[in-house]
Amino acid sequence: MSIKNAFYAQSGGVTAVINASAAGVIETARQHADKIGNVYAGRNGIIGALTEDLIDTSADSAEAIAALRHTPSGGFGSCRYKLKSIEQNRREYERLIEVFKAHNIGYFFYNGGGDSADTCLKVSQISDTLSYPIQAIHVPKTVDNDLPVTDCCPGFGSVAKYIAVSTREASFDVASMAKTSTKVFVLEVMGRHAGWIAAAGGLASSQDCEIPIVILFPEITFDKAKFLAKVDGYVKQFGYCSVVVSEGVKGEDGNFLSDQGLRDAFGHAQLGGVAPVVANIIKDGLGLKYHWGVADYLQRAARHIASKTDVEQAYAMGKAAVEYAIAGHNSVMPTIDRVSSAPYTWKVGMAQLANVANVEKMMPADYISEDGFGISEACREYLLPLIEGEDYPPYKNGLPDYVRLKNVAIEKKLEKFEI
Amino acid sequence: MSIKNAFYAQSGGVTAVINASAAGVIETARQHADKIGNVYAGRNGIIGALTEDLIDTSADSAEAIAALRHTPSGGFGSCRYKLKSIEQNRREYERLIEVFKAHNIGYFFYNGGGDSADTCLKVSQISDTLSYPIQAIHVPKTVDNDLPVTDCCPGFGSVAKYIAVSTREASFDVASMAKTSTKVFVLEVMGRHAGWIAAAGGLASSQDCEIPIVILFPEITFDKAKFLAKVDGYVKQFGYCSVVVSEGVKGEDGNFLSDQGLRDAFGHAQLGGVAPVVANIIKDGLGLKYHWGVADYLQRAARHIASKTDVEQAYAMGKAAVEYAIAGHNSVMPTIDRVSSAPYTWKVGMAQLANVANVEKMMPADYISEDGFGISEACREYLLPLIEGEDYPPYKNGLPDYVRLKNVAIEKKLEKFEI
Repeated sequence: MSIKNAFYAQSGGVTAVINASAAGVIETARQHADKIGNVYAGRNGIIGALTEDLIDTSADSAEAIAALRHTPSGGFGSCRYKLKSIEQNRREYERLIEVFKAHNIGYFFYNGGGDSADTCLKVSQISDTLSYPIQAIHVPKTVDNDLPVTDCCPGFGSVAKYIAVSTREASFDVASMAKTSTKVFVLEVMGRHAGWIAAAGGLASSQDCEIPIVILFPEITFDKAKFLAKVDGYVKQFGYCSVVVSEGVKGEDGNFLSDQGLRDAFGHAQLGGVAPVVANIIKDGLGLKYHWGVADYLQRAARHIASKTDVEQAYAMGKAAVEYAIAGHNSVMPTIDRVSSAPYTWKVGMAQLANVANVEKMMPADYISEDGFGISEACREYLLPLIEGEDYPPYKNGLPDYVRLKNVAIEKKLEKFEI
Repeated sequence: MSIKNAFYAQSGGVTAVINASAAGVIETARQHADKIGNVYAGRNGIIGALTEDLIDTSADSAEAIAALRHTPSGGFGSCRYKLKSIEQNRREYERLIEVFKAHNIGYFFYNGGGDSADTCLKVSQISDTLSYPIQAIHVPKTVDNDLPVTDCCPGFGSVAKYIAVSTREASFDVASMAKTSTKVFVLEVMGRHAGWIAAAGGLASSQDCEIPIVILFPEITFDKAKFLAKVDGYVKQFGYCSVVVSEGVKGEDGNFLSDQGLRDAFGHAQLGGVAPVVANIIKDGLGLKYHWGVADYLQRAARHIASKTDVEQAYAMGKAAVEYAIAGHNSVMPTIDRVSSAPYTWKVGMAQLANVANVEKMMPADYISEDGFGISEACREYLLPLIEGEDYPPYKNGLPDYVRLKNVAIEKKLEKFEI
């Protein structure tokens, strides 16, 4: 049997550590050159496979691949593109097989979240339905932390650390200013469906560093009166407070709080974030001076303050994916299995993709405090190990020295394919 | 002659390194216990002096004071409170003297920006006009980098580093997403009058890491057509681009671009930032998908990614202030004097407060590139040394271990004073 090549691609929103998973895949494959040939990366995810735009990762040195471990974003480009079912678009699957055949690809590593797991599952099924031998392994990644089976998702720990650190820092700032100026700082964070990232804001306050923080979770319907009472109480007690608000918070009408129907002077609809909306509610309701920030991409790209735990887990997932492939597995995903929280220990496990695709893991109800504005001790115990440790990138001239790969395309062998 | 005590206070917007200056003042004073008695810190700036709310810094250990060096925000509380002239409010100056006399204070160290330099100058003049011997030394601090005479201002280098790092990281992110999703990332930064902080965004792009960045400076009137053409050109050439916009950008009508007269569904005026406004302009004008962030307090509180140069300079300014006081100076401010840019060398200088107060240093016109959307090589040469080096705080349980001082008040000796 000839040695098969591997295909690797990044999918969906990128993270501070998805490239660490890429390094795990490529370095592990290189260590098993007797079993896996070259690793071809899809330029811009699955689109690279469909259009036969395959990057020859062997063109990059061991040093460059190792530098992926400390480089945020998707080194090969990502995409938001979901394959339809084989019944709905058989041509796309046939095309994938043509590309795999043309380049002797027998392994499919797909690095993404829930939608990508679904794509990976579909590809794994080609093996049967279109009679082409391909082993499809999903490499978990999502800042939303909403994949099932695995205890946590690579990407989340670093966002959580960024939000916890930033909330602590901004809270120190507003505490200094509160006497004559700003009394409330509002920080908008990601998480349209689940409040995992917002919950991380709660870590900014600890037993030896108490900070009044009000968290607005997407899981909890916004109650203006209750919210204002909470902020008012904290400001009276501490002199200031911080608010961490998830972009996905909804009002009693079921609409996103951010969707306030804002219009400019000419009546044009304007898109805003939820942070200014919450800030305005505080101003109108309590007359307090505020500042607000929106972390947006900064939170998920912040490799400079990545969690060491997260970096190690991201790398381990890429490595395990290759090892599972070599062991003959198909349609699986390596997982992070927590053994204990204190001290934190974990091991690599395995999930069947059928149990992962299209399942969204929500935050347990008992992770939110009774009043709905904070995190419980159970939540803190879950989150703390995930932000543990620092893993600083190297710097050059005051800036992180992130790698850009050559990303050389291999020669195309097939006709052009329109997607 | 009895040994006089010192008064120290923090003023205006706080920074990632103003506490490093505090450490410089207190540690240096402790080293000269034969010349300077206790250091009393004003709780919440000058308000602490007026209300006789003085913090006994000797209650905190050497270890705690040393930890100020790695702790952002104002450890003693800051304030926005500008003393009127002695003609307008003689009572406040008389009160200051009463407090200084009551606590044997002969040194006044005021840590702030332009307004604070003015306050410090006024206090230094008490010596003559109200016949009380006080030496007033200003310790420079401002993220806006707009103090004259000094080459740069402590606080700025760390914000500059944060903005440069964050812009590089977010740009890597948007580059990964651009194929099928976000093509433009907009980051709003501080700087209402001068574009120093926005300019720092330009450092994200370097010779070995080119990134298409459009900077919107407060010094340049916003020209929508020219801006859209610039963004469009970059997106066509690179596939994506980043925009760094100063909060102080104004349109041709002379109004802040952020002041768009936004109204909610009920017609209530809503305050927004400039980032969503710019994002909407891109969406309407080019139909490109975008993301936007507002760094706000995160940028000036981000001690976790402080510039080592900045930390050292902030500490040196506090140290020099005490040494100048001991040498008998009054009405001066230590400065950072650049000796050379490459290699970067600097020394501590001295400015007369009369030359500092109420003078705003703008960015030189030749620091902005000809098209008005970038930084010149001269600007890069000026900025780069200021973000050089990392100075990480210690961590505990995944979070920076920032100090909170005891902040014990000394016993009051005077009647209450209403401000």
